[in-house]
Parts: sequence; structure tokens; C-alpha cells
Amino acid sequence: MDLKDIGEFGFIERFAHQFDHLIKNDDSGIGDDCAVLSVSDTTNHVVSTDLLLEDVHFLKDRISPEELGYKSLAVNLSDIAAMGAKPLYSFLSLGIPKNTKVDFLDDFMKGYYRLSEKYNTPLMGGDTTKSPDKLLINVVVVGVVEKSKMHLRSMAQTGDIVCVTGFLGDSGGGLKAILKQMDVDTDIQELIDRHHNPKPQINEGLFLGKEKYVHAMMDISDGISSDLRHILKASGKSAKIDVEKIPVSTLLRKVAKNHNWDITELGSSGGEDYELLFTMEKEKFASLNQAFLTKFGKAIHTIGEIEEGKPEIIWQKNGKPLGNRKSGFDHFK
Amino acid sequence: MDLKDIGEFGFIERFAHQFDHLIKNDDSGIGDDCAVLSVSDTTNHVVSTDLLLEDVHFLKDRISPEELGYKSLAVNLSDIAAMGAKPLYSFLSLGIPKNTKVDFLDDFMKGYYRLSEKYNTPLMGGDTTKSPDKLLINVVVVGVVEKSKMHLRSMAQTGDIVCVTGFLGDSGGGLKAILKQMDVDTDIQELIDRHHNPKPQINEGLFLGKEKYVHAMMDISDGISSDLRHILKASGKSAKIDVEKIPVSTLLRKVAKNHNWDITELGSSGGEDYELLFTMEKEKFASLNQAFLTKFGKAIHTIGEIEEGKPEIIWQKNGKPLGNRKSGFDHFK
Repeated sequence: MDLKDIGEFGFIERFAHQFDHLIKNDDSGIGDDCAVLSVSDTTNHVVSTDLLLEDVHFLKDRISPEELGYKSLAVNLSDIAAMGAKPLYSFLSLGIPKNTKVDFLDDFMKGYYRLSEKYNTPLMGGDTTKSPDKLLINVVVVGVVEKSKMHLRSMAQTGDIVCVTGFLGDSGGGLKAILKQMDVDTDIQELIDRHHNPKPQINEGLFLGKEKYVHAMMDISDGISSDLRHILKASGKSAKIDVEKIPVSTLLRKVAKNHNWDITELGSSGGEDYELLFTMEKEKFASLNQAFLTKFGKAIHTIGEIEEGKPEIIWQKNGKPLGNRKSGFDHFK
Repeated sequence: MDLKDIGEFGFIERFAHQFDHLIKNDDSGIGDDCAVLSVSDTTNHVVSTDLLLEDVHFLKDRISPEELGYKSLAVNLSDIAAMGAKPLYSFLSLGIPKNTKVDFLDDFMKGYYRLSEKYNTPLMGGDTTKSPDKLLINVVVVGVVEKSKMHLRSMAQTGDIVCVTGFLGDSGGGLKAILKQMDVDTDIQELIDRHHNPKPQINEGLFLGKEKYVHAMMDISDGISSDLRHILKASGKSAKIDVEKIPVSTLLRKVAKNHNWDITELGSSGGEDYELLFTMEKEKFASLNQAFLTKFGKAIHTIGEIEEGKPEIIWQKNGKPLGNRKSGFDHFK
């Protein structure tokens, strides 16, 4: 049996629970955006780790080294944001092809440093080694959060509304343009920029995280059609999502029209937007949204509702059933 | 300028201090076996991370998957041991070639689990992704240590004796046999086994760590000729080391004699023994060694002394000067 027969999640399932009896306190491991580790009666550390490989997660000739350094940290900070946590420090492992230019590495570290400084998150260690041919990057970020403000994927409640903190699909559009090697005009370049420069929603996560009526929370890395399923599975709930309510930017609408792209597809299944996806009590939405808008200059978008039922997304369009959509991205299938 | 012109340490030097002003409390980052992170007034977390790549750090057809899983964790536990710390939990990232057999991965996790269970150190998270062709492994281990029991590389004092917790060179002999593709008899196999199954000195590190008169400590990953220099540089001291005092096993002496190997070379520069290297007050040695012998069934070996002077090793043989030896392993040179 090959790995491709069981996929990434199938492999993780094979060993994940073997370690359960070693886990102390109310710590939790595999299954959320971050591992959750008790460090005091009132405080948890949360830990995120991402492995990024040349030609799998990025193409070295299509992203600048500075953007690559920035993004390597950003995707991990996004996981910290998803827990409503504050980042504390990071660790960076690099496998570097022997003939890599020092300029390339300096620029990589410049991007990594820029984001580290923005969120006051020092690089505290790591490992560097030569790599036979491809560049590879592993980043770990540790964050801290009060136990009373934890937001896990398992916390969605029946009757909650499902919300996102920003437009979806821009990054997926940028990736599409890269993979199709499209001619790059100003609009396409802007989508590619969004793909390469995701903004981790750290302050937004801290803001949402302190509210008791915000329940499940995660970041959108694979697209809501895949990511929301994780919340539904962990919470044992169903969700009704209206594709017309998925927030899509004017820019993406314009490019999609010109190139005949399916914006519903990009909005629901395009990954790497790194906005936050969360569920909350319906009646608190208006006041929260107003405060969010005032603080961050952008609105929260509601896209559906949590219901009792099997952990599946029931897709709708303007309130009418739409049938099944793709279930998201699995690295090995 | 290529990376190979400046090497691994040269690259790290270029950015290491850039992050200094972001570092909080009395935390410390790049430069010791582990990063040191304050979690309370009396307690530190220590964090180790190692990146292991196929064909750079291991040959997939020369190590069993179970040994590989075991060793990936062992090398990180060894760094935790070097801080006198107790391991708490680990994180594992895997980049897996698409056609990898599930059996291989199950065996890998079996070895990883075996050592996790031995030290009550659960796997709490990580990342898995496909890799274009080579297997790659990144492990992070977090440990905990009382602040008063920290042992840093910078703590060596003039007049200290230099000690190691076990025989050196066996692992290097095993690696030599692998790389030379030697015929494998029982003795050679035993050396190869030592190379593939290092024993992290966790309990030994905790035992030594609680003594105030034990000063600098680290684990031996590259060989003492390279590793001791890190202590000397961090402490601003010199060391006189007698090559005749480097402890070499009967097994290695026998194999070395048969194959005309230089045991001084292997004992001083063969890496991956993962014994502890430490400095301590001379007058406390006899009682410590007796207690160590009683508890662990093996003796501590003294190999030299810390002196005032430039951070260099002064090699001796039976008390007579020996000139310079190689300065250790740099991945990029």
C-alpha cells in the first residue's frame, strides 16, 4: 500500500491517537490549527508548524526571496491568530541547495525579519543544512493565550452564524495565474501579490478571541469548502453555506470575468487567503461587526449557519440547494 | 557570493543578532544546544530543532525505517539532555515522496513512538506534505528546566576539568563503514547499530544538571574537536585536551586495528555519539563519578582542562604538545 492510497490525513490517523496516553494536563495535539500546551493554571502555549518545499508549495522563480521569507512566517502566524493567541517566538529550519547565492538568503531573511518585527516575534533558533537540490523551509511559531479565551475547532454551536474576516479567492486567483503562466497585467500582479503576501490576522484574532460569544475559529488555508469541514467534524455539526454570500473582491470579479474563471469555485475552494473563519452567536453580530469595522477598517462577512446534522456543508445559492462540491485539497491524492 | 563561500555558521552569523532587540526577559536564542525561553520566574522551556535529509544525513537503504524514526527524535532529545532539561513534547514535520510505502511510514512512527514513550514525551503536532523525491524530517522538542539548573556553553571556568559521559568514535566508525560500503561482520554491524541507535543522555543530563559544580554542558554531535570549540568560544577560555584520554571502546579499538583506522581521529572528530561533554570543578570529580557509576553503571571520563587563553583546543598526547587538528564539520564547506 502506497501513501497515495490513504492520503495525508489517512497517514496521520494511523498514529495520531497512539500518543494520547502520553499527553498531560488538558493539553491537546494533532487536530487543531495549533497544539495546545498548558504552561500555567491560566495560560496555554499554542504551537504551529509548517513545512514548505520548493516546487510543491512555491516556485522559486515566481516568488521573490523576500516574499518567500515573509510568507513562510506568515502562514504560521495565521495559525496562531486562529487560536486567538499572541505570537511569542519562532524557529526556522532551512535546507539550502549548495550553490544558493548569499544575496538570496539575505533577502529571504529580510522578509522573515520584517514580519517578525511587526509582531514582536523573535527568531529563537532552528537548523540549517545543505539540501541536495531543492530549497526547503520549516517554521515553528509558539504563541500564548489565556485558557479562558481559547477558540477550538470543536466549539461551533447549533444556531451559530458562520463568518469570515475578509475576501476569499484572491490568493487562489493569483496561484492560478502563476500555474497557468498567464501574462501578468496590473490586476493579475495584484492577485499574485496577495498570494505571496498574506496578512496573518493576528490582531483580528486577538480581538475576536476575547469575546465569549465567538465560538469555533480557524484560519482559511485550503479554502472554506475544506477548512469548514474540520470545524464541522470537530464540533459534530452541519452547516448551510450560501455561495452568493462568499465575499469576493471587486478585483477578483473583474479578472474572473475577463478570463472566464468560476468565482464561486475560487471563493469556496481557492486556498491561502489566511482570513479567519469563525462561528458566533447570531444576535451579537451587529455590534461585533461595527466594532470590528471601526478597529480594522473592514467588515466581517456572514456566509451561513451551523445546524444539527452530519458534519457536511449543505451548499445553497440564494437560499436554494446546490448539491455537493469538491471536498478540498489533500497533498497525497 | 555563494553559500559555500561563507558556510553554515557564516550564514547564521549574518542574521542571528538582527533579532536580539526583539528578545524578551532573559530568553536566549541562537548559539546553544537549545533556545531558552522563560515561562515563569523559576522555570525555562528549552527548544531543540533538527532537520534531517535523505542522502545528506541518512541513506534510506542503509538504515531501517524504525531506526530512522527513533534517531530523528533521539538527536533532539540529546540537545534537551545537554541543557539538563526534561523533555515535555515533540513536533514532527515530514516531507514524503509520493510512492513511499505505508509500511515504511508505520515502521518510522514505531521507532519514533518507542523513544517518545520511553521519555514520556508525546508527539503534539507537526506537518506532513509530499516531497518531490527525497524524504525529509524536521523534529522539534520542547523541554523544561529550573532556571537555577541551567547549563550553558558559556559557563566553563578556568581550572575546570573537561569530561565526557561515554565512549567516543563508535558512531563515527559505523558511519565510516557505511560510507565505505564495507563488508559487514558482527563488529562492524555493532558500530553501525551505535550510529543508528544513539542513546540520548536524558537521565544523565538531569543528574549532572542538578549539581552547581557542573558548569558548561553540551551534547557531542559533531565530535569534541568541533563541539568543545563552541564551549570555549562561548566561555572565552582555552582547553588542553589529551588525545590519549579520549575514551575509546574495546570494540572500536579492535575494528580500528583490523582496518587500519586512526582511533584518535575517530575519537576526537567522529560525530554523532550523543554523549554529554561538560566541564566541572576538579575536586568534586571523585564523588560525582562514584555516584554516576552507581546510578548509570558507567564511568565519567576526564579528557583535559579549561585554561585562560584564546578559545582554542591545545591538543596533547601523554602531556606533550601535538599541534593542530581539524576544526570539525561544516555542512556547506
